[in-house]
Amino acid sequence: MSDLLWQKSGVKVDADIQGFLAGDDVILDREFMLYDIEASRAHAQGLQRIGVLTEDEFAAIDAELQALANDFAAGDFVLDERYEDMHSAIEARLIERLGETGKKIHTGRSRNDQVLVATRLWLRDRLRQLHALCIESATVALERARAEKAVPLAGYTHLQRAMVSSTAMWWSAWAESFIDDAQRAVDTYRLIDANPLGTAAGYGVNLGLDRDHVTDALHFGRLQLSPIGAQLSRGKFELAALEALGSAMLDLRRLAWDLSLFTSGEFAFVALPAQYTTGSSLMPNKRNPDVIELMRASYASVAAAKTEIEQLLSLPSGYHRDLQFSKGALVHGFGRGLKALALLPALLRELRWNESAMEKALEPSMYATDLAIALAREGLPFRDAYREAANPARWAQGDPQASLNARVSPGGHGDLRLETLQARLDALRG
Amino acid sequence: MSDLLWQKSGVKVDADIQGFLAGDDVILDREFMLYDIEASRAHAQGLQRIGVLTEDEFAAIDAELQALANDFAAGDFVLDERYEDMHSAIEARLIERLGETGKKIHTGRSRNDQVLVATRLWLRDRLRQLHALCIESATVALERARAEKAVPLAGYTHLQRAMVSSTAMWWSAWAESFIDDAQRAVDTYRLIDANPLGTAAGYGVNLGLDRDHVTDALHFGRLQLSPIGAQLSRGKFELAALEALGSAMLDLRRLAWDLSLFTSGEFAFVALPAQYTTGSSLMPNKRNPDVIELMRASYASVAAAKTEIEQLLSLPSGYHRDLQFSKGALVHGFGRGLKALALLPALLRELRWNESAMEKALEPSMYATDLAIALAREGLPFRDAYREAANPARWAQGDPQASLNARVSPGGHGDLRLETLQARLDALRG
Amino acid sequence: MSDLLWQKSGVKVDADIQGFLAGDDVILDREFMLYDIEASRAHAQGLQRIGVLTEDEFAAIDAELQALANDFAAGDFVLDERYEDMHSAIEARLIERLGETGKKIHTGRSRNDQVLVATRLWLRDRLRQLHALCIESATVALERARAEKAVPLAGYTHLQRAMVSSTAMWWSAWAESFIDDAQRAVDTYRLIDANPLGTAAGYGVNLGLDRDHVTDALHFGRLQLSPIGAQLSRGKFELAALEALGSAMLDLRRLAWDLSLFTSGEFAFVALPAQYTTGSSLMPNKRNPDVIELMRASYASVAAAKTEIEQLLSLPSGYHRDLQFSKGALVHGFGRGLKALALLPALLRELRWNESAMEKALEPSMYATDLAIALAREGLPFRDAYREAANPARWAQGDPQASLNARVSPGGHGDLRLETLQARLDALRG
Amino acid sequence: MSDLLWQKSGVKVDADIQGFLAGDDVILDREFMLYDIEASRAHAQGLQRIGVLTEDEFAAIDAELQALANDFAAGDFVLDERYEDMHSAIEARLIERLGETGKKIHTGRSRNDQVLVATRLWLRDRLRQLHALCIESATVALERARAEKAVPLAGYTHLQRAMVSSTAMWWSAWAESFIDDAQRAVDTYRLIDANPLGTAAGYGVNLGLDRDHVTDALHFGRLQLSPIGAQLSRGKFELAALEALGSAMLDLRRLAWDLSLFTSGEFAFVALPAQYTTGSSLMPNKRNPDVIELMRASYASVAAAKTEIEQLLSLPSGYHRDLQFSKGALVHGFGRGLKALALLPALLRELRWNESAMEKALEPSMYATDLAIALAREGLPFRDAYREAANPARWAQGDPQASLNARVSPGGHGDLRLETLQARLDALRG
Repeated sequence: MSDLLWQKSGVKVDADIQGFLAGDDVILDREFMLYDIEASRAHAQGLQRIGVLTEDEFAAIDAELQALANDFAAGDFVLDERYEDMHSAIEARLIERLGETGKKIHTGRSRNDQVLVATRLWLRDRLRQLHALCIESATVALERARAEKAVPLAGYTHLQRAMVSSTAMWWSAWAESFIDDAQRAVDTYRLIDANPLGTAAGYGVNLGLDRDHVTDALHFGRLQLSPIGAQLSRGKFELAALEALGSAMLDLRRLAWDLSLFTSGEFAFVALPAQYTTGSSLMPNKRNPDVIELMRASYASVAAAKTEIEQLLSLPSGYHRDLQFSKGALVHGFGRGLKALALLPALLRELRWNESAMEKALEPSMYATDLAIALAREGLPFRDAYREAANPARWAQGDPQASLNARVSPGGHGDLRLETLQARLDALRG
Repeated sequence: MSDLLWQKSGVKVDADIQGFLAGDDVILDREFMLYDIEASRAHAQGLQRIGVLTEDEFAAIDAELQALANDFAAGDFVLDERYEDMHSAIEARLIERLGETGKKIHTGRSRNDQVLVATRLWLRDRLRQLHALCIESATVALERARAEKAVPLAGYTHLQRAMVSSTAMWWSAWAESFIDDAQRAVDTYRLIDANPLGTAAGYGVNLGLDRDHVTDALHFGRLQLSPIGAQLSRGKFELAALEALGSAMLDLRRLAWDLSLFTSGEFAFVALPAQYTTGSSLMPNKRNPDVIELMRASYASVAAAKTEIEQLLSLPSGYHRDLQFSKGALVHGFGRGLKALALLPALLRELRWNESAMEKALEPSMYATDLAIALAREGLPFRDAYREAANPARWAQGDPQASLNARVSPGGHGDLRLETLQARLDALRG
Repeated sequence: MSDLLWQKSGVKVDADIQGFLAGDDVILDREFMLYDIEASRAHAQGLQRIGVLTEDEFAAIDAELQALANDFAAGDFVLDERYEDMHSAIEARLIERLGETGKKIHTGRSRNDQVLVATRLWLRDRLRQLHALCIESATVALERARAEKAVPLAGYTHLQRAMVSSTAMWWSAWAESFIDDAQRAVDTYRLIDANPLGTAAGYGVNLGLDRDHVTDALHFGRLQLSPIGAQLSRGKFELAALEALGSAMLDLRRLAWDLSLFTSGEFAFVALPAQYTTGSSLMPNKRNPDVIELMRASYASVAAAKTEIEQLLSLPSGYHRDLQFSKGALVHGFGRGLKALALLPALLRELRWNESAMEKALEPSMYATDLAIALAREGLPFRDAYREAANPARWAQGDPQASLNARVSPGGHGDLRLETLQARLDALRG
Repeated sequence: MSDLLWQKSGVKVDADIQGFLAGDDVILDREFMLYDIEASRAHAQGLQRIGVLTEDEFAAIDAELQALANDFAAGDFVLDERYEDMHSAIEARLIERLGETGKKIHTGRSRNDQVLVATRLWLRDRLRQLHALCIESATVALERARAEKAVPLAGYTHLQRAMVSSTAMWWSAWAESFIDDAQRAVDTYRLIDANPLGTAAGYGVNLGLDRDHVTDALHFGRLQLSPIGAQLSRGKFELAALEALGSAMLDLRRLAWDLSLFTSGEFAFVALPAQYTTGSSLMPNKRNPDVIELMRASYASVAAAKTEIEQLLSLPSGYHRDLQFSKGALVHGFGRGLKALALLPALLRELRWNESAMEKALEPSMYATDLAIALAREGLPFRDAYREAANPARWAQGDPQASLNARVSPGGHGDLRLETLQARLDALRG
């Protein structure tokens, strides 16, 4: 490990302890490095505006930070265990290259607000991705709902055949679900879009930092005012972001479950393109839908990340080192979650229905509800109509198309109102 | 258990199985009963509008539902194990009182959309309470921040004395935190404010239900269109509501931790009114801050509720009985959470600072950061200033007031900008 | 609420606060009341042995406690909100009936060790039930494995048809799994079987309590020595018990998933007796396997209970009121879990296979692995044999019985070694 | 990625999908690689015993596997994204080096039982480490309890000063707690110590594998018989191991909390050696106990790992790709947990009490319980004695030593019975 910038002299260093303290922080910081640099540039600009840096000093620091970002992006600067974390790596680099000027960058800030601002910048990008993926999945679903109006699909409750449904109804469900998820991504983005930089270690500093300017420079929607409050938001905002991700992932999990069943030999409703399947090391006959299963499983990683953060947060106010572990949780949850969601639009686009297998699942009992309501429409009280229609002797194979077309309540197959969903989608895309 | 309305004849009933199936559903349904009745009235009105009920039939049903609501509220109608659930209790009562007319109420709906709509109506009220409690806590915190500008309070990081802080900074942190939580309650309310009634068992019905009218009658912000989507939202929306609650509860947990420390003999910064403490059965000397500890502990109940729902939701689309268990989780989480939050505003209002004990915690080392920055302001590069100020020989008892007043970055003690927080609060209160 | 035994005089009581503090404690205490009385009798006996109670006093207390237990069991004594908790109810009753003598019962104990001992006694009984239910389920599974050696069943990986399997292999899997779960119940019982009574509020008392005798009287396997340690075990041991329960519930969840698929129209491998199914309020045709779904869902309640306790336990040593919430979690988790497990043996005994549907799922590709290994046995390197057998042209419908009989590695259909499982089962039953 | 051994020809490979499928598997496999090789050697030996491999073939494979293990340990063979996973890397290496002979290694096994056996071997080592660390921590605690009998320490409940306690009582609590944890490690080891190798993909193979011999060769305590059962144990046994780890981590979390308080300026009971503390980037005065905080935080990582696995396991029987994600959870949980526990024995050995600060916390009220019991011993009924002793006028500074010495119930300061704890410890060390 590098000579620590704030190391007290005369302290014996124990390698095991240092290793434990370091953990995988510096590796995780690779995710956040460019955001820390971006925020450092804004901080330097702010320091220049209040006279802590001269124009020349600022120009030198800014150029060096830009160079570091380029080097890092190009792989020429590697963030590794030579550094305690990205914060010290950045400061060390500036000092190495700029000497006295570099020693000024940390004026009025702390690693505490540095990590807060880098995390929020990182999360904004992740929430934008989440939003885009929800929008894209909803878009594909809506397109297929429009295109496939006429394909009957068995509808299940309790995994038991219930009523005739349609692929259009199935698609519109996913469209509406992912629209809700996109809305949540937007709401969460707004919540998180506040600037903590300038709150220092949680109690402010005896400097008049130009926080308003820095907030604008980083395109934040508002200032996070209270320094203690900024520290209190650590973990809480990460959790909010993971919860927004989790919302989409819950839908993905249920969608993957549908596809897992639909691709089984027993259902056989859906064929997946071969690239979504893998072989077995022992069984020569297998084509397994591993992609779908890992999509389903990815919720677990998001749930784990949420648990990790929640478990950390039973703490008094103020910064505690415990909070550092929220970083790994965040990277793990968003890493797994966004990767799984990213494959969804293409999968939805490419999956093919097997209509003959789907037809076989439509059995006479599935028209019983239609019958009961038809009787009720004719004046028989519904509860009596229900008993009448419960008699298997009354069940007969029906016309699935007719059954579907009669489902005319808004949202039903006969009145899908896809244009309403499209309008919500367009508004969110904005 | 009552004769089930949809019991198949000839099926042997096993008491253990029936007991397991019933669970505590009917007890939990006491929470939702009035909402189910409210939605039933809207459903009946909708049926009248499309001619399934005559005006007289609707009037009779509506009156009977109103009477049932009154009886239930007055304790004259008890929902207990005589009924399978509230849904069957309501239908059974209408049939008992209105005969054939009563048998018509269930036309075009299912227990599936009934429970969805009742849950959303219940959640809207809970989110309104959550919002009001966050607003109220933020309001008290803001008032005290304004009133107590001059009281120094030790600021901690890692539970170690760090810098001089103030009660005003402490209060403004809670104000900003609970404002964020109130924002989340609003966002979540909007997400949930959609009407699932009319989606039946998840596949619609062969009736032209007037869902738009019912949506207006129940004051929902929009229609939940897709019947399959409505079922997919089961659990997901409850979870979103618990997450919004959890956000406020995370803050409450940390606030309670502060107070737990501050009321200890070692800190002794805060005195709680006697009614917030309890005695010990063995130790005659104890006055324990149990209220604070249960506030802190209540997050665990919200976390448990979230876990319970998340664990249920690994399912294909469509209704599954598993989802029924989300009800108990919701009642447990909101029950504990709202009760804990409800005590907060008064507690915040009534807690008293012990300024002499607070003063003792302000030690010379806590001015070292001020010194470092002062040196930096004079031109010494910050990293050198830091080393200089790290020398204990340079530490001296300072003037806490002066230290605080110099914290002039926005949000710091010298520029708290409480009016900005007040403006956010007022906008949310709207 | 009753006049509190240890209420300080002159303290204003706030109803909301008292309600929050009381929570549902006294209702939950109904679960533990008889165990608290049992422990109180042992404590009284211990006090008599060291001379704090005379023989007459002990006899009076013991008789009164026995009477209270009888009254409680008969419903003649109702534990309700008149009492703060069961501990105060018991003491209040003794004082009411026995005057001065009653006031002696609490000598040398605290509610802290009282609740610890009652919880451990309660848990011992729950773990005994868990053990018995695992043993019983394993027994049924083993019996059916023996009885059904010859029934082929499709074997799946990734929900894709993989190889021919058999019901005997399926049954022996559950037998072995529940044997493991029973082992865990035993291990956990031993861990918990230690007596905390006599550790008082966590720091002991200035009395020479005869803890060894009390330990014997309550049939504990050992003394929990350290008073601070006894408090540290709060939550931790409850969690261990829930984890043992969770182990069996994980198996139940997967078993329920199998049955949920097997009872679908697409698989149709299994028919459930009618009493395990329920109807729909809307759809006259439905017979839903709700019991299976609630069995599957019950894991969520155990997981929630574990989360609730884990989230509480981020605390320094010593008693904190937070720990009180572990009680509700325990009752919820064990309540749901044991009820679900209790239905399993009969369900396993009564489920019927549908052999003709099962046969349809056996397709030629499922013999490909057998072919590959047969080729390997003949000398072709396995990886080449695999490629050979991957050619669909080589696949042909085989004889499932022959395929199964050739599976002669220990545990395979051809060498099930049920007697080994039986021996483990017998050893655990002991 | 390498040419897959079981890749079907003619399948278009999509890089994003392949990347998603691969995940971080091959990186995680570095943890398990040596165990997979060890099991592969046993498998090869088993194949030789049943004639699938000749003696020469076995000798060649065995030597090559040993060489691979050496290369891997030396860093000469790097497991990276060139391979799908360690299983294919091992097989590919054997084929590359040994040609036809190498192609035989996979006869009669699947990656399914390969990963199961490697995971169990890995877990056995981790549980041994867990056991050793618990034993070592308990040993240090016991030694210090013996050495420090006479040091008074305030005892707290609800973080309020309660009664006089002692460092000896504090140490014996941790000793007893970690002894319980060590017991759990032993129990869990026995549960996991069963051999799944030879169960193939979950349905056995048409070969008479010598599973008994392989079980002995790998020093497993028993055979895991059922192939379906072996697959059902995936996740469940990992969870059991994490739960055993979690038990010790719960104690570590509470111990770290004690030390976090005790090292605060307000308590100041404990001084940590400088190497356990770190500096602040902004505040020159800070020495923060980061090690203690990360110890406390590490429970969160174990909890996250448990959540991740539990969330995965809502599946029917048989292998599903979802289960693959259990690997990362296991590595994360054990990685963080064991590292945190590994620092504990030295920390316990090196922490120093600050007796003068400790003395200041002993206030007159803390002798009230002693007084109440003393009055009760003299014949006053305890409840009356309690009221008497609740009068602050009766409180007086006492002699802490005398108070402690009078705590003569077993486990109390006057009768610590450390020899009983020592005996349990010795029995576990065995």
